Amino acid sequence: MASQSPHWRVYLSGEIHTDWREQIAAGVEATGLPVRLDAPVTHHEASDDCGVAILGEEPNKFWHDHKGAKVNAIRTRTLIEKADIVVVRFGEKYKQWNAAFDAGLAAALGKPLIVIHQDEHAHALKEVDGAALAVCKTSKEVVDILRYVIAAELDGYTRA
Amino acid sequence: MASQSPHWRVYLSGEIHTDWREQIAAGVEATGLPVRLDAPVTHHEASDDCGVAILGEEPNKFWHDHKGAKVNAIRTRTLIEKADIVVVRFGEKYKQWNAAFDAGLAAALGKPLIVIHQDEHAHALKEVDGAALAVCKTSKEVVDILRYVIAAELDGYTRA
Amino acid sequence: MASQSPHWRVYLSGEIHTDWREQIAAGVEATGLPVRLDAPVTHHEASDDCGVAILGEEPNKFWHDHKGAKVNAIRTRTLIEKADIVVVRFGEKYKQWNAAFDAGLAAALGKPLIVIHQDEHAHALKEVDGAALAVCKTSKEVVDILRYVIAAELDGYTRA
Amino acid sequence: MASQSPHWRVYLSGEIHTDWREQIAAGVEATGLPVRLDAPVTHHEASDDCGVAILGEEPNKFWHDHKGAKVNAIRTRTLIEKADIVVVRFGEKYKQWNAAFDAGLAAALGKPLIVIHQDEHAHALKEVDGAALAVCKTSKEVVDILRYVIAAELDGYTRA
Amino acid sequence: MASQSPHWRVYLSGEIHTDWREQIAAGVEATGLPVRLDAPVTHHEASDDCGVAILGEEPNKFWHDHKGAKVNAIRTRTLIEKADIVVVRFGEKYKQWNAAFDAGLAAALGKPLIVIHQDEHAHALKEVDGAALAVCKTSKEVVDILRYVIAAELDGYTRA
Amino acid sequence: MASQSPHWRVYLSGEIHTDWREQIAAGVEATGLPVRLDAPVTHHEASDDCGVAILGEEPNKFWHDHKGAKVNAIRTRTLIEKADIVVVRFGEKYKQWNAAFDAGLAAALGKPLIVIHQDEHAHALKEVDGAALAVCKTSKEVVDILRYVIAAELDGYTRA
Amino acid sequence: MASQSPHWRVYLSGEIHTDWREQIAAGVEATGLPVRLDAPVTHHEASDDCGVAILGEEPNKFWHDHKGAKVNAIRTRTLIEKADIVVVRFGEKYKQWNAAFDAGLAAALGKPLIVIHQDEHAHALKEVDGAALAVCKTSKEVVDILRYVIAAELDGYTRA
Amino acid sequence: MASQSPHWRVYLSGEIHTDWREQIAAGVEATGLPVRLDAPVTHHEASDDCGVAILGEEPNKFWHDHKGAKVNAIRTRTLIEKADIVVVRFGEKYKQWNAAFDAGLAAALGKPLIVIHQDEHAHALKEVDGAALAVCKTSKEVVDILRYVIAAELDGYTRA
Repeated sequence: MASQSPHWRVYLSGEIHTDWREQIAAGVEATGLPVRLDAPVTHHEASDDCGVAILGEEPNKFWHDHKGAKVNAIRTRTLIEKADIVVVRFGEKYKQWNAAFDAGLAAALGKPLIVIHQDEHAHALKEVDGAALAVCKTSKEVVDILRYVIAAELDGYTRA
Repeated sequence: MASQSPHWRVYLSGEIHTDWREQIAAGVEATGLPVRLDAPVTHHEASDDCGVAILGEEPNKFWHDHKGAKVNAIRTRTLIEKADIVVVRFGEKYKQWNAAFDAGLAAALGKPLIVIHQDEHAHALKEVDGAALAVCKTSKEVVDILRYVIAAELDGYTRA
Repeated sequence: MASQSPHWRVYLSGEIHTDWREQIAAGVEATGLPVRLDAPVTHHEASDDCGVAILGEEPNKFWHDHKGAKVNAIRTRTLIEKADIVVVRFGEKYKQWNAAFDAGLAAALGKPLIVIHQDEHAHALKEVDGAALAVCKTSKEVVDILRYVIAAELDGYTRA
Repeated sequence: MASQSPHWRVYLSGEIHTDWREQIAAGVEATGLPVRLDAPVTHHEASDDCGVAILGEEPNKFWHDHKGAKVNAIRTRTLIEKADIVVVRFGEKYKQWNAAFDAGLAAALGKPLIVIHQDEHAHALKEVDGAALAVCKTSKEVVDILRYVIAAELDGYTRA
Repeated sequence: MASQSPHWRVYLSGEIHTDWREQIAAGVEATGLPVRLDAPVTHHEASDDCGVAILGEEPNKFWHDHKGAKVNAIRTRTLIEKADIVVVRFGEKYKQWNAAFDAGLAAALGKPLIVIHQDEHAHALKEVDGAALAVCKTSKEVVDILRYVIAAELDGYTRA
Repeated sequence: MASQSPHWRVYLSGEIHTDWREQIAAGVEATGLPVRLDAPVTHHEASDDCGVAILGEEPNKFWHDHKGAKVNAIRTRTLIEKADIVVVRFGEKYKQWNAAFDAGLAAALGKPLIVIHQDEHAHALKEVDGAALAVCKTSKEVVDILRYVIAAELDGYTRA
Repeated sequence: MASQSPHWRVYLSGEIHTDWREQIAAGVEATGLPVRLDAPVTHHEASDDCGVAILGEEPNKFWHDHKGAKVNAIRTRTLIEKADIVVVRFGEKYKQWNAAFDAGLAAALGKPLIVIHQDEHAHALKEVDGAALAVCKTSKEVVDILRYVIAAELDGYTRA
Repeated sequence: MASQSPHWRVYLSGEIHTDWREQIAAGVEATGLPVRLDAPVTHHEASDDCGVAILGEEPNKFWHDHKGAKVNAIRTRTLIEKADIVVVRFGEKYKQWNAAFDAGLAAALGKPLIVIHQDEHAHALKEVDGAALAVCKTSKEVVDILRYVIAAELDGYTRA
């Protein structure tokens, strides 16, 4: 209705072992949506070691992790707070407690929450799903939701 | 007084069966106001079916509606929170509870609320009107208010 | 787990033509739940006329309603803000826009929202239901939810 | 310093398969601390089924879980918001995403967060630990913290 | 509907040269309303001099006033923030800018605002009245509103 | 230190009968400060009549004023909330309760408040001054403060 | 004006080497003010060692301090957030950065701030004093302020 | 992932006698980070005298300081509230209470806090460090953190 289109900021939290973020990025680019995607640092070793690499070694693994977790939090909490939409993907492996933690942050901040996971995790994630506005299985579904909520486009309805 | 003019964001909630949003858009455009208009998805079928079209069919109509309502909420709640002004129009037909719900959201968020309805609904809408800063009957009145509050223009006063 | 039991405040909004509030009050009393129930003024004529009865007559019906709506808002908005849980009942008749407005207030304030309505209104209320944590049909269901969330009692599970 | 001692509210989130809550309750009682302990409904089956038991059966397991998760959320989110301190215990088994989700809620709400887990989970929980004000291994440590922060008692220091 | 009745806190701001607060107090007491009334320090000289009387003389009248204004603010801002309802009375004389300032505080804090003034000041107070939920002329009207919004009593309606 | 300079938004509230806003605007322009100045509608008749001119006549002067005050509030409250700094000028004449009301709004919203008035009003404005970060007598002082706080320029110190 | 008198909560932060808190407590008790005084743990060694005493030794002094600082923060931040008034005393010795940190917390939370220090520190504390509502030199002045703001008593004015 | 890169705002508080801010600015510029650096007015005499230089002399040093502290607060509090990250450096000399006060402001506002100080001050700063997400010794470490959290670059990991 108006020509200017401010970007929506979408934060992509969670699993870092598959290319789901790239799939969403490709989908967003293909459809030309005014979206800025943000994410945690997805380089696993950098993410684990950033604290000690910058601020000095720790002989105790707990404090090694602690320094890193806090440096990462500067990025992740800031970007979650700036986000219009938070997407959290739970993969097939690992505990992924940080993903659920981010979902809790997003819920308490009133951010619209989109969750991605497969059926096998539905029961274990029922509290997270209960706080979400959409529960997806694929990156394509996320892109379709972004197209619909941002550009009002829905295949088979607004377009042939 | 200053040359830069940041846009005001105005969210147009409510009735989707007449062209009242287009009238406001035309009025805004004619007067050159720095306004960005936002709205829910006004394609009725897309709005009803977006949840199942993207996330999978539901045999139960309640959950069909539920999935759609939540996907729409990603758009509507985000845009209401970003709005500087929320306009809600109540038409002649239907229950339009979502319009009154949006008015409640806007009021609790401290957004200036402008309501549009005809006299016949005044008594039923007295609580909503009581929370509004202006109660209009026409799209032209809304445009006149936007001109006055944004550009300080009032016909017969600041202009001949 | 501890002996002291602070009261939960539950606000009962919406329809005023049946005895649903009394049913909930009876259920709460029968189960001895530490609940304080609040409600709007349910005396219909008093609610309509309170503004002019106290503050002086208005020849124009709009301002008659306006004065009353604002006096009522002193009560309703205060009690909704103090509530731990907001229950909104949509009856069979009338527009009931104030009920949907209260639901919007509750949603924006982050209050847990319980909605009561029959199936026939499910589609028209899908946005309100989408923001609710429970959608009920009867007062008994509301009492059962209060028993569960406050006292951790569930028939057939925690009690024979 | 003053005779009146308002209770501190402490919410105990997470693992429900051991008696860690009872240990904390016993410790709090033994020391006479002015503490009110709250928790989710810890009856596993009631927690899983509360939604359908009260609001009607769902053939689809996802919606069965969904209804239950939301009814539980009425209790858990309310009590977390009322809490002065949130304690989250991660056990040895299961995904426990709801525990991490609660930790995220608590962090975003600015609640002092105490986490309990064993060393083996330290790396996976580093983001949660990074947001916590204390990382414990036992219920006794939690009780000792409560004694210190509430009653200013520390064994070997303020008492022989 | 329930036996326990938590007090409403009502802050009485503004004019200190007539007995309007005593009239409201008498009315509240006569009707047995569960109301706690708060007010600024109404001893004029104490209010003017409290800063220097406690914290030391100031040769410059501006700083004399400044110290006093801030000590008074400890009381007034705290009580306004704790209030459920803020009543502001504008008398016949003086500038009374602190009354209008308190009304602005109350409005921004979302407190229900009741204003008392005579017709002669209506035009000058139109912005304040526009933010109020009731505009009264007498203390009796304020008591009648408190009776209605707190106890649901309205002469001629709920009582003969 | 960095080349980009986001504008500071400064809202100029209060007296509308002298050219103090133009003086500040000229000073800001002369110094090239990155400032956007906002203000209420300063056309006195338009401001008084905007409600009825747009939304229809009212035979009762109170409602005539009421409609106008609310339409003006759409502008003034929005701009005060967007402001980085709020300046309020109290002139020599009139009650100017809306100026004090705006100062109260600004204080409760945590906006840095700058007040302009002459010595004769110092005692009556002591509560407002007590909430302000600067009390000025002239528009030049306001411009000097803006230069200092935005551009770190102070005559005789950072410049000869 | 009303018989019930809810307690004011006053948090006493800062210097722990003199008996200033006891002086305030004695003054409050002597005057019978409805005040609850809170404070950090003032046992110096317990405060330093609480983290490692409860949660296990740390060979590195930084982490020894870190664990203790966070356990203390559970107490101090909770009590500051619950306080109606925050009093911070700066003594003659030491850096006392935690006192200034608490003052910053109090200021950002909008708590009325009372500062106690001698003249020699006035210049170094000018930013803290600038955010305070009263700057005192003695405990007696604090008690006098509490008497005035809570009980409206001022020697020589309200009492002979 | 997306081409547009909104600037991060970083506020540099604290010590003004070394060139640490220039070092950070040089590091940020060298790496091309999208960062806007803000700071208090670092011209010592201007900072001390700004109040009286603009608003008139004060014979009493306390009020001289007071006027200046408040004018500076217009700048500092506004920029801290706009900041995404707050960095506070404690130097070797002086009390630096304003630095600790700023750290408290930042903590209460939920801003990610980075502290810079040498080991000798670690114990005295343990409460401030406990609230920080990173504790640095050098400006280079701050730049490395900014590179990591903003650009996801970490020497030895993401770059050779």
